[in-house]
Amino acid sequence: MTRVERHASFGGWQEVWQHRSDILHCEMKFAVYLPPQAANQPVPVLYWLSGLTCSEQNLITKAGFQRYAAELGVMVVAIDTSPRGEDVADDSAWDLGQGAGFYLNATQQPWAAHFLMYDYLTKEIPALIASHFPTNARQSIAGHSMGGHGALMVALKNPGLFQSVSAFAPIVAPSQVPWGQKAFTTYLGSDTTQWQQWDSLWLAENGHPLPPTLIDQGLADPFYPQQLTTELLENCCKEKSLPVTFRYHPDYDHSYYFISSFIEEHLRFHAAALTVS
Amino acid sequence: MTRVERHASFGGWQEVWQHRSDILHCEMKFAVYLPPQAANQPVPVLYWLSGLTCSEQNLITKAGFQRYAAELGVMVVAIDTSPRGEDVADDSAWDLGQGAGFYLNATQQPWAAHFLMYDYLTKEIPALIASHFPTNARQSIAGHSMGGHGALMVALKNPGLFQSVSAFAPIVAPSQVPWGQKAFTTYLGSDTTQWQQWDSLWLAENGHPLPPTLIDQGLADPFYPQQLTTELLENCCKEKSLPVTFRYHPDYDHSYYFISSFIEEHLRFHAAALTVS
Repeated sequence: MTRVERHASFGGWQEVWQHRSDILHCEMKFAVYLPPQAANQPVPVLYWLSGLTCSEQNLITKAGFQRYAAELGVMVVAIDTSPRGEDVADDSAWDLGQGAGFYLNATQQPWAAHFLMYDYLTKEIPALIASHFPTNARQSIAGHSMGGHGALMVALKNPGLFQSVSAFAPIVAPSQVPWGQKAFTTYLGSDTTQWQQWDSLWLAENGHPLPPTLIDQGLADPFYPQQLTTELLENCCKEKSLPVTFRYHPDYDHSYYFISSFIEEHLRFHAAALTVS
Repeated sequence: MTRVERHASFGGWQEVWQHRSDILHCEMKFAVYLPPQAANQPVPVLYWLSGLTCSEQNLITKAGFQRYAAELGVMVVAIDTSPRGEDVADDSAWDLGQGAGFYLNATQQPWAAHFLMYDYLTKEIPALIASHFPTNARQSIAGHSMGGHGALMVALKNPGLFQSVSAFAPIVAPSQVPWGQKAFTTYLGSDTTQWQQWDSLWLAENGHPLPPTLIDQGLADPFYPQQLTTELLENCCKEKSLPVTFRYHPDYDHSYYFISSFIEEHLRFHAAALTVS
């Protein structure tokens, strides 16, 4: 594992690491923000999953989260959005292939050889983080758009794994919207019963729980409500009494200008869950 | 003049505009952050000048300044770093030509036809801003690296024009360092007496005043001290009793991770100068 970037930031360090992934069978990068507190003690971890076309860079350069992570003593780990490299299957569309892994385990070829982002996120990355960085046992997860889908879905599939969840403009029902249908057909095949285990709305409807969760959606988001069917999940959470707060923000769009405007509240939300014993 | 971007950000608006510059004879873009207060009243303006290779995008996507501009009620205008376009002279080097205008008026061909960033910044842009946005009469200026040179130089040449000045990792003595010597030789010719009027250190040594000024320099900056001869200006300011605060920060480099870590203090510094009557 090689450190490829290291920048002082708000008294801590914003780093980027490169490693050979045993699960994805390719070279991968991930970003770690080490708050000042990590120099002296183990700290909790917030995982971040980015959206379509993004990499580990988007959060760390554009969101401005480091100020709050530094204040609150939270390590933030941002992974890439798919396997990468010339040997890895790809597609010319921006919403499929590299940059669009959807945080699932693909079953269809040629994708199944590398597109195993769920296993990478839930097995390989936590082990790497635990062995190389000063973490305690508490962790939360957040994401944007496709990464909001990832954060919700991974939390729903793994009760107790995370202390809290948050999402900006998440894809909440991928089986029912064009982005998700395209990706799921490609990666999982046309048997839609195979899609259910990767669909947050289906998981919530079928009894999977969530920890305290915060979801923000901009009302000037060009992908709302066609791709981002936020109200479907909101209605389900009401029926199931899941502890999810939904907020709708006039004027805000799908960009990191939206994320940066509310990232402080997400960090404080997670820190409260991560630091209660 | 056409608005090409508009994003809600911290209760205000981050916009990007495109216009035909009468002075530069090409299409140019600039960014304007309108704080929430600008909806109801005129506000002061902070101009931002970026560094080599940058455009109007770097500050607005990476610095995280909008939170503080929104709180303090300051409009922030970020211009591009050179004239742009296929008809505009360029160079294959990253530190010359487009993206490297050095905020001066070129006298040598082929540059003199378009590279008149000093006139653009001091004449055309303030008139555009005053006629299209709700500004009051108070303004300050800041910048990074080549833009730090620009902010200091323009303020030194125009006593009374700005209420305050700040710079991250500025080129303070371009006549004495490789970046500046290359640019000045190219744009101004080999007669070094023609360089003096564009050199902050020379201007300060020769009696030009500065308003309250804040300069931050990272000690892990790879361009310090060879290109960024901060101490030369610091010594001059002491001799001349100029009101300039110099701060040196261990571990910080030349990137926007450095800028974002201290941009709050710069915004508060400028707001204090801009809002005192």
